[in-house]
Amino acid sequence: MKEDICAVVFQPEGKRIEVKRGVTVLEAADSVGMGIEAACGGHQKCGTCKVIGDGNLSEPTQDELRLLSEEEVEQGYRLACAATIQGDVRITVPVESRIGKQKLQIEGIEQSVSLNPAVHKYTVALPKATLADTRTDKERILGAMKEVFGLDLGLEYGVYKQLPWAIREGEWTVSVAVWNRMRILSVEPGAVRHAYGVAVDVGTTKIAVYLLNLRNGEVIGKKAVANPQIKYGDDVVSRISYVMKDDKKLEELQRSVLDAVGQIIKDLCAEARVDAKHIYEIVVVGNTVMQHLLLGVSPKYVGRSPYCAVLGSGDFRASEIGLKVNGNANVSVHTFPIIGGFVGGDHVSAILATKMHESEEMSMLMDIGTNTEIAIGNKEGVISCSCASGPAFEGFHIKHGMHASTGAIERVEINPATFDVRYSTIDGVRARGLCGSGLIDVLAEMLKAGVMDTRGKLNTEIDSDRIRKKEFVVAWERETGIDSDIVITQRDIRELQSAKAAMRAGAGILMNKKGIKEEDIDVFYIAGAFGSYVEPGNARTIGMYPEVGLERVKIVGNAAGAGAKLALISTDERACAEEIAKKVRYVELAAEPDFTRYYMLSHYFPFGDTQRHPEVIRMLEKRGD
Amino acid sequence: MKEDICAVVFQPEGKRIEVKRGVTVLEAADSVGMGIEAACGGHQKCGTCKVIGDGNLSEPTQDELRLLSEEEVEQGYRLACAATIQGDVRITVPVESRIGKQKLQIEGIEQSVSLNPAVHKYTVALPKATLADTRTDKERILGAMKEVFGLDLGLEYGVYKQLPWAIREGEWTVSVAVWNRMRILSVEPGAVRHAYGVAVDVGTTKIAVYLLNLRNGEVIGKKAVANPQIKYGDDVVSRISYVMKDDKKLEELQRSVLDAVGQIIKDLCAEARVDAKHIYEIVVVGNTVMQHLLLGVSPKYVGRSPYCAVLGSGDFRASEIGLKVNGNANVSVHTFPIIGGFVGGDHVSAILATKMHESEEMSMLMDIGTNTEIAIGNKEGVISCSCASGPAFEGFHIKHGMHASTGAIERVEINPATFDVRYSTIDGVRARGLCGSGLIDVLAEMLKAGVMDTRGKLNTEIDSDRIRKKEFVVAWERETGIDSDIVITQRDIRELQSAKAAMRAGAGILMNKKGIKEEDIDVFYIAGAFGSYVEPGNARTIGMYPEVGLERVKIVGNAAGAGAKLALISTDERACAEEIAKKVRYVELAAEPDFTRYYMLSHYFPFGDTQRHPEVIRMLEKRGD
Repeated sequence: MKEDICAVVFQPEGKRIEVKRGVTVLEAADSVGMGIEAACGGHQKCGTCKVIGDGNLSEPTQDELRLLSEEEVEQGYRLACAATIQGDVRITVPVESRIGKQKLQIEGIEQSVSLNPAVHKYTVALPKATLADTRTDKERILGAMKEVFGLDLGLEYGVYKQLPWAIREGEWTVSVAVWNRMRILSVEPGAVRHAYGVAVDVGTTKIAVYLLNLRNGEVIGKKAVANPQIKYGDDVVSRISYVMKDDKKLEELQRSVLDAVGQIIKDLCAEARVDAKHIYEIVVVGNTVMQHLLLGVSPKYVGRSPYCAVLGSGDFRASEIGLKVNGNANVSVHTFPIIGGFVGGDHVSAILATKMHESEEMSMLMDIGTNTEIAIGNKEGVISCSCASGPAFEGFHIKHGMHASTGAIERVEINPATFDVRYSTIDGVRARGLCGSGLIDVLAEMLKAGVMDTRGKLNTEIDSDRIRKKEFVVAWERETGIDSDIVITQRDIRELQSAKAAMRAGAGILMNKKGIKEEDIDVFYIAGAFGSYVEPGNARTIGMYPEVGLERVKIVGNAAGAGAKLALISTDERACAEEIAKKVRYVELAAEPDFTRYYMLSHYFPFGDTQRHPEVIRMLEKRGD
Repeated sequence: MKEDICAVVFQPEGKRIEVKRGVTVLEAADSVGMGIEAACGGHQKCGTCKVIGDGNLSEPTQDELRLLSEEEVEQGYRLACAATIQGDVRITVPVESRIGKQKLQIEGIEQSVSLNPAVHKYTVALPKATLADTRTDKERILGAMKEVFGLDLGLEYGVYKQLPWAIREGEWTVSVAVWNRMRILSVEPGAVRHAYGVAVDVGTTKIAVYLLNLRNGEVIGKKAVANPQIKYGDDVVSRISYVMKDDKKLEELQRSVLDAVGQIIKDLCAEARVDAKHIYEIVVVGNTVMQHLLLGVSPKYVGRSPYCAVLGSGDFRASEIGLKVNGNANVSVHTFPIIGGFVGGDHVSAILATKMHESEEMSMLMDIGTNTEIAIGNKEGVISCSCASGPAFEGFHIKHGMHASTGAIERVEINPATFDVRYSTIDGVRARGLCGSGLIDVLAEMLKAGVMDTRGKLNTEIDSDRIRKKEFVVAWERETGIDSDIVITQRDIRELQSAKAAMRAGAGILMNKKGIKEEDIDVFYIAGAFGSYVEPGNARTIGMYPEVGLERVKIVGNAAGAGAKLALISTDERACAEEIAKKVRYVELAAEPDFTRYYMLSHYFPFGDTQRHPEVIRMLEKRGD
């Protein structure tokens, strides 16, 4: 049998593999994760899978001669789906045939990534059972995968249920989904190349889900919903408390998030007309507590000194954790590694998306949410922390706070002379409340107009009907779509002040730890849906952001989700995430001696130490003129 | 750290391991599967774990000096649970301290087996979490298992749920159950050495379950119940038909057997006062169809030419197949390899128990049940087949047939002069019916008395009120515990005749294939509960057994169950089972050209070719005198 094994080298990467004589070039490429375009599904119909062969390949088929030009044939071009390997051979894959490099658009950043998902699909013809060959279906398929692709595999339990049917229905040709060159997840009849994956970002407040085609890395659907766990507590600490009430609570929280994720996947499949049985892997990122709750593992000790998690990265069966994706395939669930304490997989994922840990530039990354994670560093080292910023900027606990939806006031200006307010709403309808960006604007404008002082106190001595004893009127009832004025109260200000102070303190302490100042920061990444809508200048005015030059701000949207997508389509990126989790140093703010002082300073608008915000201070002083 | 690793050699086996300095000799022994007795659980209380140390061990403790004699101390004796390894050391384990060799009693055979179960338990002290060491619980335990025992492990999903609690409850000392040096099945607080396993023999008609202590190989409980699948069909073929009716039926049959097994395990644990959470592994044997049904995998193609199974051996999680054993531990389920067609794991297991494949002697093994498996061979090679003997000898489809329980006629004699019947019943009460051994006796006695001819026809010309047109009266109504005579009908005879013919034909064809005659058989193993109660002489008289000298008959009871027990306590035996399955050649009777002729000949009492049963023929002819 030895002479039936051929050595194949793929150029220019130099990837090597041994395969059985007779395998197509496309199959060989698949088995080493070399993505070759094959628009027709490998049926010698489209001619997109052109490669250049040098060595022992089969004679060109009629289809090849039809689909290739004479010149191409002379230069050794072949169709990867048609040419079979007959001996040792060197294959060059030209750029135009590659699906290997995929540009993945993340709002603001574009990463180039090698397509190399954990799940590959193989089509294999099995020797037919006869009275002389009565091997079990298991032996038959494992034998063929070993002989044809050199893979030593195991079978998931669920596969045994599909196996006898799939083999006979496919008349001894089946397609096999293999996870990490280790386990067969699914077997289906005939030649079926479809393979999809899902990236999930479980935030404390929102869940974002992306459906990707693992064959080319394309995002073919995305959807976000509110995290249904909100009804059990707004933030991670209250969720931990809820879980600890009794043994059933953990299960309840797990169930709620799993049901939500399962439903979105179902919806995305319906919209994209994808059969859910072709979903093979799900990558999950979330802060430490969200990842634990999704797995049904107690996050109790994450919330107590010394803040130890039970696990970070792991690979699970969707069936064992209770995530219902489809009835047939065995879906693998990968959770992200974590950094420490609450700084979880979503932060690792956001760092992965920015690649700040590989950059020469000194970067700061602020991923704003109910928990805000901040990282500072470059390729010499990155440190990070988590701030309990709370859900105030999502509109929670704010009298007229609301989500960023129709009717939300999103932009606000206050005339410093008349105190008149100009505002705009989402979709231009009558105002119904204030969303995060509106709240930031109100604070910044009140500060600039002197309606509020640097301590956050409303200046009730100003003579304007908009300024009442404990509130400022943003919109009069007659203009609104609700039955009252839309106001911002002194209490709202305190709530928002705590939130921004938590973030500013975290950023300040990290800068101190790193021994850098604002001017040393080359890039300031702002991540998270909230951060995308906020006017960075105003956020800086109120001191939610440190005073980094606005030209250095990069708004990157859901960077955590983007990192999850990268890891879904590339195991190299997954390995990179492990590196990040290992190398990034976690700073437990509560254990920092400076924390209380810094947190106090951070309550000031913009900040207690005015030398750190010279531009804002200059602007505010100008107002005083 | 390198200098903290010590090389340990266990004598006289020469087993080697590297462990971290400070590990006890007992822990090191556990991790290489050297069973050392430690009756007190390793708490320096009993002195049963004596070993002789030569090299770097800790100084003897007060407990050691108390439990060892002065002479022993001089000779270098130590307690394995107290002495810690301080450098390279050679340890001799004396015979009296070993639990390594275990004599396992199987009715009729005694096998000596090295104790080496798949699951080992380790007690390990974890470094306590601090603000300077905030590793996850997962990293902490995997790190310790690697550092202390040199094991690279993975964790079962369910373990994450126990982990944070177990670690803190055990104050950073936990006991870890490890499967095959690969996966952590369970983590519990403190030092807990208990480990139990279960061997299951799923017969078509009966399920036998054994509870074993994996620490010493002892059987601490056993129980058998009827297979509840009987209500869906008496034999494997009718169960396959039932399953094929619709998709739900397979699940229904699987559920019924899993529920039965789960219930027996629960009962056995209660009786033996074993906490079910300390059961870590279950070994299952059964014919091919029974193994498929237990796993919920369709046996459809097992029943159709070319008779291919889906799988033989496999390792599963009890939770994934749906077997409920306990709420905490993750139990591993191992199914046996199969030979081919219906010849399944139970037959491999029976061969394993007899070790006929390693013997010089030519052996025949007949495992009698609803399906009867027969094997013939020695260390030069073994062939085997399966006969659809049906459940007639279990009392099914026989007018007054019944199970071997109170009131069953189990022994019968017929006076050839008067045709009077003498019989005895189980428990000596009034007769209620005939069990298998009674049925065999009746047939043999009717044959000897001339009540039935060699074709199985009742001789109605005999003048006796016991002989009616289509039946023979075994017991008169006035003697019985039921409202009628107990009879054996002409139809009953035909039913039993088919059953015995199936077995005799199988044995005959295998002997032909092997080129041997009855006199070449050195040992004739009769296995199965039924075979244990039958009078071998009578079974031979009716030609159910070939005419092998009675002195060469060995009745070995439930050999399949015995093999399952061997495999449960020894992975070496498990490997041996794989060897058997690979090497034993399966003979598909239906595909044998001789089969029909042989099956016809086998319908005669004792057999169509009288030269093959000279003794019986001589006896019958003597009657004619």
